[in-house]
Amino acid sequence: MELFSNEYFMNEALKQAKIAFEEGEIPVGAVIVCKNRVIAKAYNQSERLNDVTAHAEMVAITSATNYLGSKYLVDCKLYVTLEPCLMCGGALFWSQISEVYFGAGDPKRGYQQVGSPVLHPKTTVKGGILAEQSTQLLNDFFKKLRK
Amino acid sequence: MELFSNEYFMNEALKQAKIAFEEGEIPVGAVIVCKNRVIAKAYNQSERLNDVTAHAEMVAITSATNYLGSKYLVDCKLYVTLEPCLMCGGALFWSQISEVYFGAGDPKRGYQQVGSPVLHPKTTVKGGILAEQSTQLLNDFFKKLRK
Repeated sequence: MELFSNEYFMNEALKQAKIAFEEGEIPVGAVIVCKNRVIAKAYNQSERLNDVTAHAEMVAITSATNYLGSKYLVDCKLYVTLEPCLMCGGALFWSQISEVYFGAGDPKRGYQQVGSPVLHPKTTVKGGILAEQSTQLLNDFFKKLRK
Repeated sequence: MELFSNEYFMNEALKQAKIAFEEGEIPVGAVIVCKNRVIAKAYNQSERLNDVTAHAEMVAITSATNYLGSKYLVDCKLYVTLEPCLMCGGALFWSQISEVYFGAGDPKRGYQQVGSPVLHPKTTVKGGILAEQSTQLLNDFFKKLRK
């Protein structure tokens, strides 16, 4: 895996998803990268915090803007293991983030399900990065949950 | 104004919006009500916290779920002075909140702009409650900002 490639950073996001898995959370992880540096890492904490807004992307956005001291993430990239939901897509819109990379698509709750554009017009998006690993982790989680 | 009417609770949300106004934030306020009791009050804090996710509704949801010790707001009502954006609409979906009341509509950023349903199918919605007061406050804010 090439250093600083999309796969490299998505792998960092997958590491976060694995922490979520271990903690009994739906395993989704995210990192935010600015000038090839990871400035925020986060995983879904909805169960632990009893908070539906504590998705990996939301925690990562708050953490990154806190780090930068700016509301906007114009020169940043988000790597998230699952296609963002509408809430997270809406937050990404407000952040004006430059690039969004996601792993597995989410045909049920992904923001791309609504016809209208959700992200900022300046934001570029690419899905399917290490998607298999992400899907595998999610499948393992739900299989374990049903036992 | 009748006690515990929609106007009564929206007026509580307006009081929150006025605090935001005083603090130089886009003046939007929200309260969450459970069994006729206000269990969470919040106003937009995006500027103070440098955080685009700190909309009044988001802060109120986190605060209410924290108070209840539950991720879900099934028996609760949200009163918010402005139509929620997509991010907040997405969060309200996850919360499964019972009822949403908003003041002014937001033809530019309101969640109702996307064709698809955003809120939970069990959630009922009513807009236009004390809408004039909300619009007036927003107009005053942007007039002051442009000076």
